[in-house]
Amino acid sequence: MSAAQDTAGGEAQPWGEVTPDAARRLLLAAVEAFAERGYHATTTRDIAGRAGMSPAALYIHYKTKEELLHRISRIGHEKAVDILRTAARAEGGPAERLAEAVSSFVRWHAGGRTTARVVQYELDSLGPDARAEITTLRRQVDAEVRGIIEEGVRTGEFDVPDVRGTTRAVLSLCVDVARWFTIDGDRTPEEVGALYADLVLRMVGADRTGTVQR
Amino acid sequence: MSAAQDTAGGEAQPWGEVTPDAARRLLLAAVEAFAERGYHATTTRDIAGRAGMSPAALYIHYKTKEELLHRISRIGHEKAVDILRTAARAEGGPAERLAEAVSSFVRWHAGGRTTARVVQYELDSLGPDARAEITTLRRQVDAEVRGIIEEGVRTGEFDVPDVRGTTRAVLSLCVDVARWFTIDGDRTPEEVGALYADLVLRMVGADRTGTVQR
Repeated sequence: MSAAQDTAGGEAQPWGEVTPDAARRLLLAAVEAFAERGYHATTTRDIAGRAGMSPAALYIHYKTKEELLHRISRIGHEKAVDILRTAARAEGGPAERLAEAVSSFVRWHAGGRTTARVVQYELDSLGPDARAEITTLRRQVDAEVRGIIEEGVRTGEFDVPDVRGTTRAVLSLCVDVARWFTIDGDRTPEEVGALYADLVLRMVGADRTGTVQR
Repeated sequence: MSAAQDTAGGEAQPWGEVTPDAARRLLLAAVEAFAERGYHATTTRDIAGRAGMSPAALYIHYKTKEELLHRISRIGHEKAVDILRTAARAEGGPAERLAEAVSSFVRWHAGGRTTARVVQYELDSLGPDARAEITTLRRQVDAEVRGIIEEGVRTGEFDVPDVRGTTRAVLSLCVDVARWFTIDGDRTPEEVGALYADLVLRMVGADRTGTVQR
């Protein structure tokens, strides 16, 4: 978590890079509106109002409501790729890096659950061009995790009969944290991240080969 | 799958029990509308129109839009409890029953993904009374799976340091199938169900104790 990140409702937001300030405030307002009411029930007027701006001021930054969703989705997916790529390229063996990928991805989905829900559940609301761009980013997300698992299989540390299906299951487990996690629950994002890292190491058979010391 | 179940868009629907026919058609129309546009962007007029009925005809069966969502959510959750309870009470040891619970729950979420998405993503749109009822059903869903895992721990077949967290992870993995599964994908619901049963047995350590022959 960098100090440049905004927070809204106690959640970490990946919008620190968005400038100017008005453009960032509008993105935050759009995330909140889409999460509460859904994309189709939200108007650009609603979003401008939440940001304390006029509809005319919104149009300076975003031409359409879809452009806001596209921007939110792109930033969310780029951040996902960044988190997983950082873990994949870290020091250590495949088990250590898979554990780090899972725990950091889980922490991000728990901490930024409102954004994550919008990003995941409103994909069908994107137009064809935006959808194609996001699909490319989703393939990169998948490839980062698959790469670690493939390496673990090569080195003999993992035992994974179905690498593609297991990769999808691992990512699915992490993403769904955004659906059920609440700040009032009995665990912190860090605790869920640690549990899920252990569960995923079991899924890939990393704890059975005897080669992993953790 | 019983012959009494309706299908829409190739998906199994748990609405066979809903009578009369007009009430069932309205529920199906509501599921489709909520899935496409979201609860808040859907009007009772939209739903009636999709079902080929007038708004007045809709009000004979459902007083409000929320009543439709409540009914959909209740039926969906009752079916979930039924699927898991059936698996939990079947013959065999905990590993066999957990595998059956996971594979049947996955098949249902893949086959009925549109309904499952509405049920899972529109929970916040329910009023307090409906929400309380659904929360009770969700506790039953959790309890069925937790019961199997606890039994496996007691018998020594499973090795699970965190039963509550693992139960939630198992259910989460199954539920999220509704988000990513598409009929154009590379696997059938049955294939995903079989893979996930294996992954979950790994998560609970059932394949490491040497007591399970599968």
